[in-house]
Amino acid sequence: MVCIVEMFEKPKLEKPVLIEGLPGIGFVANIAALHLIRELKAVRFAEIHSSAFQDLAITTAEGGTCSPLNELYYGRSQDGGRDLLIWYGNTQALTTAGQYELCGRVLDLAQELGCEYVITLGGYRQEEVKNPPQVYSAASDLETMEKAIALGTKVMVGQIFGIAGLTVGLARLRNMKSFSLLVETLGTYPDTEATRHALLSLNKFLGMNIDLSRLDIAAAETKKVLEVFGLIRTVAEEKKKGEQQFRWSI
Amino acid sequence: MVCIVEMFEKPKLEKPVLIEGLPGIGFVANIAALHLIRELKAVRFAEIHSSAFQDLAITTAEGGTCSPLNELYYGRSQDGGRDLLIWYGNTQALTTAGQYELCGRVLDLAQELGCEYVITLGGYRQEEVKNPPQVYSAASDLETMEKAIALGTKVMVGQIFGIAGLTVGLARLRNMKSFSLLVETLGTYPDTEATRHALLSLNKFLGMNIDLSRLDIAAAETKKVLEVFGLIRTVAEEKKKGEQQFRWSI
Amino acid sequence: MVCIVEMFEKPKLEKPVLIEGLPGIGFVANIAALHLIRELKAVRFAEIHSSAFQDLAITTAEGGTCSPLNELYYGRSQDGGRDLLIWYGNTQALTTAGQYELCGRVLDLAQELGCEYVITLGGYRQEEVKNPPQVYSAASDLETMEKAIALGTKVMVGQIFGIAGLTVGLARLRNMKSFSLLVETLGTYPDTEATRHALLSLNKFLGMNIDLSRLDIAAAETKKVLEVFGLIRTVAEEKKKGEQQFRWSI
Amino acid sequence: MVCIVEMFEKPKLEKPVLIEGLPGIGFVANIAALHLIRELKAVRFAEIHSSAFQDLAITTAEGGTCSPLNELYYGRSQDGGRDLLIWYGNTQALTTAGQYELCGRVLDLAQELGCEYVITLGGYRQEEVKNPPQVYSAASDLETMEKAIALGTKVMVGQIFGIAGLTVGLARLRNMKSFSLLVETLGTYPDTEATRHALLSLNKFLGMNIDLSRLDIAAAETKKVLEVFGLIRTVAEEKKKGEQQFRWSI
Repeated sequence: MVCIVEMFEKPKLEKPVLIEGLPGIGFVANIAALHLIRELKAVRFAEIHSSAFQDLAITTAEGGTCSPLNELYYGRSQDGGRDLLIWYGNTQALTTAGQYELCGRVLDLAQELGCEYVITLGGYRQEEVKNPPQVYSAASDLETMEKAIALGTKVMVGQIFGIAGLTVGLARLRNMKSFSLLVETLGTYPDTEATRHALLSLNKFLGMNIDLSRLDIAAAETKKVLEVFGLIRTVAEEKKKGEQQFRWSI
Repeated sequence: MVCIVEMFEKPKLEKPVLIEGLPGIGFVANIAALHLIRELKAVRFAEIHSSAFQDLAITTAEGGTCSPLNELYYGRSQDGGRDLLIWYGNTQALTTAGQYELCGRVLDLAQELGCEYVITLGGYRQEEVKNPPQVYSAASDLETMEKAIALGTKVMVGQIFGIAGLTVGLARLRNMKSFSLLVETLGTYPDTEATRHALLSLNKFLGMNIDLSRLDIAAAETKKVLEVFGLIRTVAEEKKKGEQQFRWSI
Repeated sequence: MVCIVEMFEKPKLEKPVLIEGLPGIGFVANIAALHLIRELKAVRFAEIHSSAFQDLAITTAEGGTCSPLNELYYGRSQDGGRDLLIWYGNTQALTTAGQYELCGRVLDLAQELGCEYVITLGGYRQEEVKNPPQVYSAASDLETMEKAIALGTKVMVGQIFGIAGLTVGLARLRNMKSFSLLVETLGTYPDTEATRHALLSLNKFLGMNIDLSRLDIAAAETKKVLEVFGLIRTVAEEKKKGEQQFRWSI
Repeated sequence: MVCIVEMFEKPKLEKPVLIEGLPGIGFVANIAALHLIRELKAVRFAEIHSSAFQDLAITTAEGGTCSPLNELYYGRSQDGGRDLLIWYGNTQALTTAGQYELCGRVLDLAQELGCEYVITLGGYRQEEVKNPPQVYSAASDLETMEKAIALGTKVMVGQIFGIAGLTVGLARLRNMKSFSLLVETLGTYPDTEATRHALLSLNKFLGMNIDLSRLDIAAAETKKVLEVFGLIRTVAEEKKKGEQQFRWSI
């Protein structure tokens, strides 16, 4: 595997918090990250390519093309809160080794920029979803877990697949604090409502006040991207195979 | 993965255009490349082997053998147009990482030879094909897209799988201009008619006048090679699995 | 693949014996290793991570997380016997190459610490199990095999899959003495009884007197971990595929 | 992938011919190589391990173990003919990349020892087999092919899978002469009769007079090894998947 990080700028940040926002169950992380990027007018400063991403191009409506990629943005918090590092992208890696390498490279870079705190977002697939959907969490350590519980989350029991789980685990190995916010979702479509509750928890935790009134726009755009990428179809198909084999291809 | 480029000659070329011509849907690129090589009396100057190609040998009619491989040819344009670099072969790589490495090595080499423009060809699988078949395109950037549209192509919507798509994406990352010409095809046999329309667009774009009267010969030979390679059968089988899993094995 | 060993301490050991205890058939090795760690109050001195482990996190009951990992412990034998190196973990590697790398790294480290003797444990899946279950063995060499036979074991006939087999083979290549103790088991649940007989043989061979009265506790804990990891379910599913495809995913 | 060659001796050989003898269709190559090793009292001088071999150990009847491995032997021809390098083993590599690496390492070593000629053996699976079975061949070049035809072989048409084919292809790239002898076989059991005809052709080509009266012994032993390795069962199962997916696992 070869994972290449192209960095356009090395931002100076104050104790930034890394927010993981790659496509996953219910696209909760992906919609949330896109919304944060817009609301914070976050700046794109790095692009990541991996030979463990799929070998294809995706067309844009105008006939342009885009490739499977990950990006890093930084955003200054509006309310005197902490700066954010936002990890956005249209894919996770296709192989386990590719996932480890991707995650390792992003954490390397985050640490270089002074980051000691990582939050991953995700959906928690359920057959039925409560109203409002319950937010679950799991953390790198029990002290951090207490803070997550204080947000009104419940203890997640089980496995957290893919980047959302791997990142918490690898962050812990680096003595970074980390937790995952996982919102109940049916999981097969971009779930705005689940994303809203992930962001409400995030707002609370970071003392931010991100406006959620335009969240539908981010969800709609995510849906559009995903349809072109064939991802939504994939989710439905993958679901049949059971969650353990869950792996993103774009 | 190990990808080895053996270069027999380092040609001096004037702003060459790289034409990708590996086997793919409808074998449009593969037939077109073979035809260009013959009509331009293009010279073979590099051979590429990868451990991501299949582990087998294919026999020739006389009992000789050939291996999965890629080749590079250069051709001087007949009509004062630009020189061509033609990327020909009997296989794509079997793995995603192998595809990235193969494509990266070819683009490295093309750039060393002064190439800043890449055109990939391919079929666009449809259940029904218009007469004449519609040519679609997607480009590295909107300026290039305008030129492709001016050829009478339509905007491609969706995913461009394999080398044809990956190459446009990776070219864009290197600030090379690139577009893909994708012709409607049923896709399960070497499609001469689709190839003809790809070459007509190419002729128009490059100001060339490649004679297409012998195109049937290139198609027949491609068919013969593919039958020995078991490729035609494979295409039909692969088709069932859906396009997303599409991956070439010789 | 990348396999990283983090070593917290370099213990001084007297001709230690390496005991392999990763999850496998019947979880015999895994329960036995956990029990040994507790009874010997063994000290954790190294942690091993591999990009061939699955990309996820597992939650603990309190909302903490743990990652797929391997660990090394050393234990001083109670009765003037040999020191033990205990190789414990919650996963084997997902790929063949990952298994070779993992096993090679552990044997490297064991040899650095003066180890020349390796014992692997495992279950031997049978449709029916005798009472008491028969212990089978296979060794790096016939001299070692005689010692294993003297413990009342029978000659194992067939294949020893995964780490239990690979380790004996790789140890032999390094001129280390090695044998495998494989106990009859139905194999689809953490088998305390099979583990008891593995440990009885081990006690006898090493001249130890490990108390087995608390073995149920280790088995119960192993079961708890495995349930969270989804491993027990996996075993049942994997079983259908036949033993040859047997491969651990956490 | 990591492929390790351990060389016990660097023999001085006169223009040796490399004979490939790994397990494959009908086990023709494997039986033939074992028979040659015995009849020529060939000397084992190198052992090859790869992380692309399966991760297991196989027990011997006495309780010893052996690992997936390849070996190289040299044999002095009885009748003033050329020396032989015999490539024997109980497995091919499990991955394409592993096959390329394995084959490349063996050819490197053969070339170091002055080898310029490579013969691969194999079965050619047919639904029905003539009596006597027809021998087919394919060669690196047409001059070599003429020599193979002169042995009474027919031109092989199609694909030669795995090491038997890959080796001819990679030998050709190194400007070594090479051909493959492929004998008709039903292919699902160790086929003594097919092997006899492979060796008759080999005798003729090399001007040797290898006694074939003990060939049954080599076949019986190969069968025994294969049964322990679970290979014979595997062949039958693999057959269902079609030849294209044919890949050896021990």
